[in-house]
Amino acid sequence: MATSGYRRAAEATARAVVVGIDAGGTRTRAAVARAAADGGPPLRTGVSGPGNALSVPFDVLTSHLRQAVAAATPPSLRPRVRAVAAGLAGCSALPGNAGAAHARSALRAALAELGIRPEVVAVSSDTEIALAGAPGSPGDGLVLIAGTGAVAARITGGITAATADGNGWLLGDSGSGFWLGREAVRSALASLDGRGAPTALTPAVLAHYLGETAAQDEPATPTAAQRMRDRLVQAVHERPVPDLAHLAPLVARTADNGDPVARRLLSDAAEHLVGTLDALQPRPGETLVTTGGLLGPGGALLGPLTRRLAPRDLRPVPMPDGLAGAVALARRALDGTGRPCGCSAD
Amino acid sequence: MATSGYRRAAEATARAVVVGIDAGGTRTRAAVARAAADGGPPLRTGVSGPGNALSVPFDVLTSHLRQAVAAATPPSLRPRVRAVAAGLAGCSALPGNAGAAHARSALRAALAELGIRPEVVAVSSDTEIALAGAPGSPGDGLVLIAGTGAVAARITGGITAATADGNGWLLGDSGSGFWLGREAVRSALASLDGRGAPTALTPAVLAHYLGETAAQDEPATPTAAQRMRDRLVQAVHERPVPDLAHLAPLVARTADNGDPVARRLLSDAAEHLVGTLDALQPRPGETLVTTGGLLGPGGALLGPLTRRLAPRDLRPVPMPDGLAGAVALARRALDGTGRPCGCSAD
Repeated sequence: MATSGYRRAAEATARAVVVGIDAGGTRTRAAVARAAADGGPPLRTGVSGPGNALSVPFDVLTSHLRQAVAAATPPSLRPRVRAVAAGLAGCSALPGNAGAAHARSALRAALAELGIRPEVVAVSSDTEIALAGAPGSPGDGLVLIAGTGAVAARITGGITAATADGNGWLLGDSGSGFWLGREAVRSALASLDGRGAPTALTPAVLAHYLGETAAQDEPATPTAAQRMRDRLVQAVHERPVPDLAHLAPLVARTADNGDPVARRLLSDAAEHLVGTLDALQPRPGETLVTTGGLLGPGGALLGPLTRRLAPRDLRPVPMPDGLAGAVALARRALDGTGRPCGCSAD
Repeated sequence: MATSGYRRAAEATARAVVVGIDAGGTRTRAAVARAAADGGPPLRTGVSGPGNALSVPFDVLTSHLRQAVAAATPPSLRPRVRAVAAGLAGCSALPGNAGAAHARSALRAALAELGIRPEVVAVSSDTEIALAGAPGSPGDGLVLIAGTGAVAARITGGITAATADGNGWLLGDSGSGFWLGREAVRSALASLDGRGAPTALTPAVLAHYLGETAAQDEPATPTAAQRMRDRLVQAVHERPVPDLAHLAPLVARTADNGDPVARRLLSDAAEHLVGTLDALQPRPGETLVTTGGLLGPGGALLGPLTRRLAPRDLRPVPMPDGLAGAVALARRALDGTGRPCGCSAD
């Protein structure tokens, strides 16, 4: 009996899985993986819409968490989920942080709807899971994220010790995808009214918002240019404000084609990100994980950032997303070797 | 009978009044004045809430126009109103401009609700009425407005020939009251997370949003500073976005007290406004009317702007608002010596 019970427990452990979640301003990703510390890469992943814990309304956040987890975790695996670890943008480790409370409730609701009843549910910030995903899964280091938004964090013992920026598109996120997109539209408007230099961003931005036809003709008169500006301003305002971040790849392409205005925007964005990082007083040789659409592998700002930091012996470790870290934290939370992560563990 | 009819007509003319309206991003002003070309200053004025033709919803715009006109025009005067001229921010002279159509319908509805049935109703842009209010009521010249928003216009024969900026708080209005307010909050946040220099704007902004108590203690630890940032970001987001413009006087006061960060913001704002004006290629000696909270008489940016333009023989003529110009246009529309103004006359 004892042997049989032991064997059953061992089998149950072998069959156990964990779920890691990475939720940012543009999308929510989930991954399911074997629970064992050496359980290998994710078995399956899922993706859904925006998951910023501060800016996404509760019902939408719950729905996006549920969709991503459902896509990653087929019904047959759901009873085997023993730990869930999520890192969300807008979720800070501070007591009383509104984003963390929001995220915890939304995640609990999403899991309950899917019939997933893990023994551990841990909610962290997107920066904490990003660091945990780096090779060696370090507990100390710096994280710089530039996707829809932009934030830097210093993490000590797995917990956020300080952050810089991450203040959202209205008041901050300098150098982010939103920032690049808004500056691209501003540059187009400035070229149309004579405040700024002509730029290939203008036809590109006009094509994005008004279609290729609108972009083909250079406005011949001040009146035609003004009508074009009016139409562009109106078209931007007809979409959700954060959608301006969708223009970031267009800025990168235009810069690649040699447009000086677009190149200047990328350079200014990289400067902003260095300034954000510098607020945390990085030390030479420190671990620095970068992620988000602009700073992950192949990200448009990874090169400019790396060039600026190299003389200071800071080498970015680009990660595609925070899923690996979220899975690592879920595994650690489960086997008891890790400490409770950032915002909460319940 | 002929003599008596003539006398009655003359008496009616003497008793006739006109209404001028100046509607901007922060408030709507109306004035009632005698209709005669030499009819003197307004008899009475009224004020209400925001009147930007593009950004204020139709019902609210109608209501604000009605309130301002009602306050300026007591019921006894309403049957004697023979012309109404209004200049609205967000209203451009271009055919098909959404702001102009909006403004026209809202103004008609507001007047009908008050039982005012003028022979002429003219709708212009805020820039056109501003120029018309300058001494000599010139038809040609430049107007630079910096209040909640910021826009420059070149006016030829009373009609807008070209504009620069005026693209709204999300995409433009560089150097405006909104711009100053947003930069003040950004400077406070940057000083709290170490990206920016310490500044007296920080306690001032914190006091504005969180009360004097919150502002009194310098946060002693990074965690306290981060909690303060979270609270500030949240408090800003709990108010309507354009309310950031309410911080402009605070920036001016802080600059007056010698704070270098606030002084830099005022200087940057003035540079932006010069850039906006320069897009219209001003000529030495041209008429340049300035108005709006920041560029009217005593406005915080009037000095910095005047100093920058003096070497180019451009001397701002500051006007407190566009009411004098709106009244002048209403008088002209009525007696037939003027031309139909900007957007429409119906």
